[in-house]
Amino acid sequence: MVIPENVNKGLFTLRGTKALKRMNAAALQILADEIREFLVESISESGGHLASNLGIVELTLALHTVFTTPKDKIVWDVGHQAYVHKILTGRRGHFGSLRKMGGLSGFPKPCESEHDAFGTGHSSTAISAALGLAAARDLRDATEKKDLKREKRETVIAVVGDGSMTGGLAYEGLNNAGHANTDLLVVLNDNQMSISKNVGAVSRHLNSLRTANAYLGAKEDVHFILDKLPVIGAPITRGIESAKGLLKYAILPGVFFEEMGFRYIGPVDGHDISALLAVLRQVRKIKGPVLLHVLTTKGKGYTNAEKSPWSYHGVGKFCTKTGEHAVSSSAPTYTDIFSKHLCRKAARDSRIVAITAAMPDGTGLYKFKERFKQRFFDVGIAESHAVTFAAGLAAGGMKPVFAVYSSFLQRAYDQIIHDVAIQNLPVIFAIDHAGAVAGDGETHQGIYDIAFLSHIPNMTILAPSDGEELRQMLDFALAHDGPVAIRYPKEVAPEESSDETKIEILRSNILQEGKKIAIVSVGVMRETAREVVRMLSHDKFSPALFNARSVKPICTDLIKNLTAYKYVFTIEDGVRLGGFGERLARQIGDNFCHAFAFGDIFPETGTRNELFARYNLNAESIYKKIIEEISNGKQKNP
Amino acid sequence: MVIPENVNKGLFTLRGTKALKRMNAAALQILADEIREFLVESISESGGHLASNLGIVELTLALHTVFTTPKDKIVWDVGHQAYVHKILTGRRGHFGSLRKMGGLSGFPKPCESEHDAFGTGHSSTAISAALGLAAARDLRDATEKKDLKREKRETVIAVVGDGSMTGGLAYEGLNNAGHANTDLLVVLNDNQMSISKNVGAVSRHLNSLRTANAYLGAKEDVHFILDKLPVIGAPITRGIESAKGLLKYAILPGVFFEEMGFRYIGPVDGHDISALLAVLRQVRKIKGPVLLHVLTTKGKGYTNAEKSPWSYHGVGKFCTKTGEHAVSSSAPTYTDIFSKHLCRKAARDSRIVAITAAMPDGTGLYKFKERFKQRFFDVGIAESHAVTFAAGLAAGGMKPVFAVYSSFLQRAYDQIIHDVAIQNLPVIFAIDHAGAVAGDGETHQGIYDIAFLSHIPNMTILAPSDGEELRQMLDFALAHDGPVAIRYPKEVAPEESSDETKIEILRSNILQEGKKIAIVSVGVMRETAREVVRMLSHDKFSPALFNARSVKPICTDLIKNLTAYKYVFTIEDGVRLGGFGERLARQIGDNFCHAFAFGDIFPETGTRNELFARYNLNAESIYKKIIEEISNGKQKNP
Repeated sequence: MVIPENVNKGLFTLRGTKALKRMNAAALQILADEIREFLVESISESGGHLASNLGIVELTLALHTVFTTPKDKIVWDVGHQAYVHKILTGRRGHFGSLRKMGGLSGFPKPCESEHDAFGTGHSSTAISAALGLAAARDLRDATEKKDLKREKRETVIAVVGDGSMTGGLAYEGLNNAGHANTDLLVVLNDNQMSISKNVGAVSRHLNSLRTANAYLGAKEDVHFILDKLPVIGAPITRGIESAKGLLKYAILPGVFFEEMGFRYIGPVDGHDISALLAVLRQVRKIKGPVLLHVLTTKGKGYTNAEKSPWSYHGVGKFCTKTGEHAVSSSAPTYTDIFSKHLCRKAARDSRIVAITAAMPDGTGLYKFKERFKQRFFDVGIAESHAVTFAAGLAAGGMKPVFAVYSSFLQRAYDQIIHDVAIQNLPVIFAIDHAGAVAGDGETHQGIYDIAFLSHIPNMTILAPSDGEELRQMLDFALAHDGPVAIRYPKEVAPEESSDETKIEILRSNILQEGKKIAIVSVGVMRETAREVVRMLSHDKFSPALFNARSVKPICTDLIKNLTAYKYVFTIEDGVRLGGFGERLARQIGDNFCHAFAFGDIFPETGTRNELFARYNLNAESIYKKIIEEISNGKQKNP
Repeated sequence: MVIPENVNKGLFTLRGTKALKRMNAAALQILADEIREFLVESISESGGHLASNLGIVELTLALHTVFTTPKDKIVWDVGHQAYVHKILTGRRGHFGSLRKMGGLSGFPKPCESEHDAFGTGHSSTAISAALGLAAARDLRDATEKKDLKREKRETVIAVVGDGSMTGGLAYEGLNNAGHANTDLLVVLNDNQMSISKNVGAVSRHLNSLRTANAYLGAKEDVHFILDKLPVIGAPITRGIESAKGLLKYAILPGVFFEEMGFRYIGPVDGHDISALLAVLRQVRKIKGPVLLHVLTTKGKGYTNAEKSPWSYHGVGKFCTKTGEHAVSSSAPTYTDIFSKHLCRKAARDSRIVAITAAMPDGTGLYKFKERFKQRFFDVGIAESHAVTFAAGLAAGGMKPVFAVYSSFLQRAYDQIIHDVAIQNLPVIFAIDHAGAVAGDGETHQGIYDIAFLSHIPNMTILAPSDGEELRQMLDFALAHDGPVAIRYPKEVAPEESSDETKIEILRSNILQEGKKIAIVSVGVMRETAREVVRMLSHDKFSPALFNARSVKPICTDLIKNLTAYKYVFTIEDGVRLGGFGERLARQIGDNFCHAFAFGDIFPETGTRNELFARYNLNAESIYKKIIEEISNGKQKNP
């Protein structure tokens, strides 16, 4: 942890959560306002997740007032909304280092604080994890023959956003918890959107709950509708506007959650501290699984963020007054190029369809969405479904493109094998955020995709090293009769390096002729490899440089060509085990020296360049290691 | 496909489904009875999934009478209940070859018949795949400016068992379908159990629907309860026995599915052909997503199977008269040994808990369930949840053991990384059905686990080669501070080969000293390796034999020892890419020759021995290849 910054204003000198318990609602509200001010100032400097944290200030304060961590356990689903929790549990001074290497993680992390009961990052895990913690508590209590009063017993709480409710894992957790006979509090933090806009039936259900609450406040007499019960065959009108809908929510508010076996309470205004304190004090007395539905406003209290919460979801530096974001490079990223080229192709081929799991902006599909509404599918945070759905589309004659971050595609590993690859269906995986990912740490690194896709039969894996390659790889994939994955990082695409007008996608190309030493770069690592070549050239070496292009299958000519070199090195932006270099090594035999790749540990938070430096994947480290290998080789064969 | 058997009786000479459309309910019922007779006779010879298919005879007949494949698409979730569908679509004559190499698959397979719209095998995929097919149909119709009458339009149907509804993927599919504006029929084949017994809140919901239906048949007046609406804080009674429950289902039967955006119809008696025909003819007229709830009896019509459906789920040969199953070997399997030893350990350590995803029998956990009810968790078909739940239990101080088939663990790849490994939590994966899996074909092969687990940091992977090793590996895992996977096949465990009283789990052992040639076997391949050693010894070679034990990390002494050999071969029951052998090869360098493992294609149906033979992993093939390599080597270095 780097040196804490000095932050000291008013009530905000609070240390730990004990003091909260002596504060009344009015005092807590003042604290809430100060926390908001701090969040805006701090994140405007460091970047981070702003809107979601502004929305959850009162809820977090109320939770820490009524409950006591680390005795009580709070599991923050996704976890990027845990900043207020971090502020309250002794980490306020570290916000200057937020999401920086060696600094404060943007997510809960048990190794950072005992108040973080469980590490999160990906969506929809909290209910399952919390149920595990609750079951462990029950077993411990049973073994120790404890029969504590409810207030003294450990309370386990999962705080889950409405967006996370579209994930199958959340449902599996609810289903199991609703069946298990244990005390568990699920707080549904309903800010009426996930990262951009919620989709799916459950989202509609939540909307109905919000509306029903408004209607039912009037305590209307709804008896009269009972005679109009539906019969099979008669049309059923849906939505809360209908009398039947109203009646339904009158009889059983939160009927979906009640059917899942939960006691449903809510909705409660998530910015009314008194109401939150009152309901939480009630809720802790209830036995069994409880779902508390809290309505919050993303970006609450900071006008710019309230108006356009999605642009303050994950944010870089910005001006707190005007809300203007620091301008980043206008050079096109891989995402931009993918986005534009996919639209160009889709204009000519009506079979091309695009799928996102709740990330139309991050994946660049928002353009496709605007232009080809009918062919665009946002399935919510549901990567497994996205892949099987894509397989169904492909089986129905379409050409589906699933644009997804590398680390989230991990959630569909079985569906890629079972639904796509076994049937050899032409589904395209446009894997964004591949390789090292800046700022998010262990949970979001996109470094496993080559390893988890390479051993799947029928799978083709491509890695562009510039924008033109990405375009032509997409062309290739759209014409290929089988699944194709194209992986690229969140990065500006470098200038085209090749003057080939028609790239042969499954064949590597040689970027520089050379002798004795050959370097093979995978995708975006081409630029690093160039730098290494330059450095080696200064030492009078003349290394050859190959661009692999196809990660799987490996170009057969490349394998042949490499036999001419005494030393072969590969550079890839992924894990070594199961990666490209190790696979190539097995095919070229004796002359292979070293695969530059991520080793067998979880890379922490940092910029991409920091991570490359730390894990010996920057030009300088690679250069040094090559010189070392060559020296050893010279000693071996003088 | 092998030569069809001759089956010819009465109506059963039916070819294709056209004739069904001219038959009335009575004639269809006669056909149903004959199909049952055929199923019992045929499966008593071949083995296969009996009970689920007996339960779905009338439903399948009704579907093929009202709809027309391949124009209409039926996606069979899991797919082992598609035998009747196969019989009706021209594959009756092939049942002699069911689940045999080169024969009829036990699951739907588009490459086997155009009537199989989508391949299945794993649970809960059908709704997502069907939604994809439906969306593709809509887009095609829109492009071709088709405005077909509803009856002429392609109908897409997903047939899903109640057990599959506990899977998150099914929910993601429902959630998306309920939101999408497309026509889709989901037939819920509710036989009130998954493979053994259903768990979870949704299962309770279905039970309520069944019961409500019985009650509501009486058309009771339930108005009076309305005045007793629940208020926050008042206890809510649950279950259909309560008046409110009744009222709820009176107002909106299938409220869970209605909330998911589906039109709910049912429940319908799944063995009443007239009722099924009538309801299906109505249902096809309804716009939007429809859920048809059909009640069936697993094992229907065959008394032995009706009485004990779980023992006729996946069944070997049996006597049709007595129902007696052919006795298989009584020698203990790896599963038996795991089961027994886990109980022994759990008796001494109250922190040991066991988790299954709806397979207490297959994984051997039924014994644990009997003895340690409080510490046993069946989470339903929900592998992702099982892993995150286990992580929560571990974070809460327990020692969770998740016993699961290798191919189903694929569904929790992200949870293993994100929830277990990043936090280095001591979760034990007892991976059954690892390696080649008999009879089930491509979808169920357990050959990817080494590849998808090896590149995960903090993960230890072990493979026992006999029962004693399995026991000691479990001891090791329970004491280890981090995740451990122990993989073993569905096979009788061989006699112990070592007289070491205390095995060092992370260290390999040498089973036979030798010269020049070293063979390293992984887990259960030890016996094959022994046979290879015997064959080579006849040729005057004296190969050394090592048992790897730890797949990851690889024993450092093993790596050192192997440098003494000119030829090193590995044998493993998994894929080559990303496997043990290739990883070892990179560590020992020049003297490595060949990793015997599964190549880069999906192995089809067969017995384990047939698969080993086909993929050059039996002793004879390995022996031949070794001789070939040595001859080449001799030529290279005379």
